Amino acid sequence: MASSKSLPPSQESIEAGGGLINRRWLMKSGLAIGTFGLTAGAARAEQIGVPEWSSTPGKGMSGYGQPSPFESDVSRPALKLFTDGIADESGVSFTPLEKLAGTMTPNGLFFERHHSGIPEIDPAKHKFAIHGLVKRRLVFSVENLLRYPMVTRTCFIECAGNSLFNSLAEPQQRSAGEIHGLIGNAEWTGVPLALLLEEAGVDVEAKWLHVEGADAAKMSRSVPLKQALAGDAIIALYQNGERLRPEQGYPMRLVLPGWQGNMCVKWLRRIKLVTKPLHTKDETSKYTLLQKDGKARQFTFEMGVKSVITAPSPGVTPSGKGLYQVSGLAWSGGGRITRVEISADGGTSWADAHINPGSGPQALARFRLPWLWDGSPRTLMSRATDETGSVQPTREAWYRPFAAGQLFHQNAIQAWAVAANGEVRNVYA
Amino acid sequence: MASSKSLPPSQESIEAGGGLINRRWLMKSGLAIGTFGLTAGAARAEQIGVPEWSSTPGKGMSGYGQPSPFESDVSRPALKLFTDGIADESGVSFTPLEKLAGTMTPNGLFFERHHSGIPEIDPAKHKFAIHGLVKRRLVFSVENLLRYPMVTRTCFIECAGNSLFNSLAEPQQRSAGEIHGLIGNAEWTGVPLALLLEEAGVDVEAKWLHVEGADAAKMSRSVPLKQALAGDAIIALYQNGERLRPEQGYPMRLVLPGWQGNMCVKWLRRIKLVTKPLHTKDETSKYTLLQKDGKARQFTFEMGVKSVITAPSPGVTPSGKGLYQVSGLAWSGGGRITRVEISADGGTSWADAHINPGSGPQALARFRLPWLWDGSPRTLMSRATDETGSVQPTREAWYRPFAAGQLFHQNAIQAWAVAANGEVRNVYA
Repeated sequence: MASSKSLPPSQESIEAGGGLINRRWLMKSGLAIGTFGLTAGAARAEQIGVPEWSSTPGKGMSGYGQPSPFESDVSRPALKLFTDGIADESGVSFTPLEKLAGTMTPNGLFFERHHSGIPEIDPAKHKFAIHGLVKRRLVFSVENLLRYPMVTRTCFIECAGNSLFNSLAEPQQRSAGEIHGLIGNAEWTGVPLALLLEEAGVDVEAKWLHVEGADAAKMSRSVPLKQALAGDAIIALYQNGERLRPEQGYPMRLVLPGWQGNMCVKWLRRIKLVTKPLHTKDETSKYTLLQKDGKARQFTFEMGVKSVITAPSPGVTPSGKGLYQVSGLAWSGGGRITRVEISADGGTSWADAHINPGSGPQALARFRLPWLWDGSPRTLMSRATDETGSVQPTREAWYRPFAAGQLFHQNAIQAWAVAANGEVRNVYA
Repeated sequence: MASSKSLPPSQESIEAGGGLINRRWLMKSGLAIGTFGLTAGAARAEQIGVPEWSSTPGKGMSGYGQPSPFESDVSRPALKLFTDGIADESGVSFTPLEKLAGTMTPNGLFFERHHSGIPEIDPAKHKFAIHGLVKRRLVFSVENLLRYPMVTRTCFIECAGNSLFNSLAEPQQRSAGEIHGLIGNAEWTGVPLALLLEEAGVDVEAKWLHVEGADAAKMSRSVPLKQALAGDAIIALYQNGERLRPEQGYPMRLVLPGWQGNMCVKWLRRIKLVTKPLHTKDETSKYTLLQKDGKARQFTFEMGVKSVITAPSPGVTPSGKGLYQVSGLAWSGGGRITRVEISADGGTSWADAHINPGSGPQALARFRLPWLWDGSPRTLMSRATDETGSVQPTREAWYRPFAAGQLFHQNAIQAWAVAANGEVRNVYA
């Protein structure tokens, strides 16, 4: 094996200002060359004794496992959006992005958004109907639908209101997950919507779907038929291998890869084929974007290209100068992530991050880059590009067309300011 | 949209005996053409009322979600391997493969195997050492190791004793998961072993790793250095996005993609660089294969190419003649799955199944094929091929070299007999 590389890295390995190092510097034929431990003082030569848990037999098997009790702080922080005594259960809880690694979101930590709480649905009694402009009105039980041919694909679901705290005038000091965690990434398995519509026989004048959930809010959205089919819409019954969790729509939900979360209607109850959008409460009073010219964008289906650095981030702080791995998540409703750049000098210079291989279109991608922090204040940013060429906008560029306080589809570049003491703060840069 | 296809499929769509239909028959430019519901009588035109759960607000948010109470039967069946009062907690629990869909295994349902129970490890006290033939003896705390650069990859871990029930003289009537469920597929994130060894500085005479766990059994295996590095060994800290579960080795385990599970040592305590294998109890008294010639195969690292049909399977039964989707899982320690064939006539004729795109090497792949069951007794089989050209063997071919009762690395073709009443039984065919 090769000898260890020396620090600081040679001049030609410096990729951008603020200590960003070429993403290939650590790699050699796919193997990483160590220096992290030595510079970080992580590893020490010491004796390791036999701990107490190595001396007696441990616990036995369990039917359904749970996380270690030492990980009880890894949970979804909740935010009630209304506290009027009527809609107490309307709210969100956030995926704790900064406490996770890789690309998949465990089902127990996948963000929640519901408008009237989580219905406890008995699958033996649930029905799902396809009706309206069809040749055959169809009603499915869960048991029936489970017999249909299924497909499997991995994609994210992101709430249209994700990153809403960054719409406030002053940057909020919250964790990466509390700001950007209305997103989760999962492997969905279910029945192609196209197959069920084929069976129902869609009339030629049908152009839209009216999709409604079985929750008390009767969440309902208008979905354009043609695009939904082109986008591989699925009636999902399984998430990450197992049946959907109640808060994710058990026993079934619509999944529209890359489109805003609230169109992926949970607790799916019916799809009605119609000629035009119905302008439901969930696409008029909410989920619209008021422009400066007084007009509102109503149907903004696709989620934009976006990224966030999860390490370092507020609460995930470097402890003294040295070598670190900057890491984060990038995604786009438009397709595959092809590039993520990182800046450590507030956007003056940028270095290409390594994108972990294997993530498909409309799925979370994990990026990483070595960073040699000299201990001085630095502002870290990430900027994603997708396969269509869309580039994540600056905060200023994103807000330009909109009236003040607009919060849906906010995909602006996030800046984290790292102070000399390692503290990380949310800044508008 | 095209009109529905008629049943039975045209003669040219019949791919093999027993009703297997060409995998492209249902697909048209990526969209499936329906007929399942009509033939299966699944969908009915009826009124759907407003159910009780649509009338009142549901439950609120939770920190860490759980499955629906209606899914409580989806759990890992457990099997104690010793009941001598000493090693009561030595056992296995199986991933319930036939109750899952897609390719990912949820952490709560990932199979368990432990030789002396699950240690409850305090991560603040756990140490991991690299020592022996190294220039620098290193000891890592969990906190230190979490600062290291990480990589992410998806792969299965399969117990070398998976499918052990099929080693008995008579076929056991158990579910697909109880027979073949000592396997799980997950996205692992952790520190490349190569990076830590580079930092320690491996002496040139070191050829093997002695890897030991912190459980009371001190599970320990000898791992060849060169192959472990070539195979992208990881010290995993995260599984499917969150920290490892206790039964999967919290706070850290070794992951050797494609190699038998017990080498992927859990609760990882130390890696000692040595010149030759140590012939520990876990690689001599167990995990060896006695041949007919009286010699034993000791080091059989890589798991062979294998597949199992999960639907239909025992307990997952067709209800009357009609169109079904045969579905299952295939995998290989040797690389990517390139082909899965299905037979519905006990191996006389075979049809190529559709392999769900996106699965990488050493990962579970989901396969599917339409099957028009005429209601007569049929024997279903699946046969996988990997990118190296290895083909899953018949039961007879697999057993040929071995003494009676050998059970490790059993990757023979599984046959399920479907009776006229839909009952599915395990048969040796």
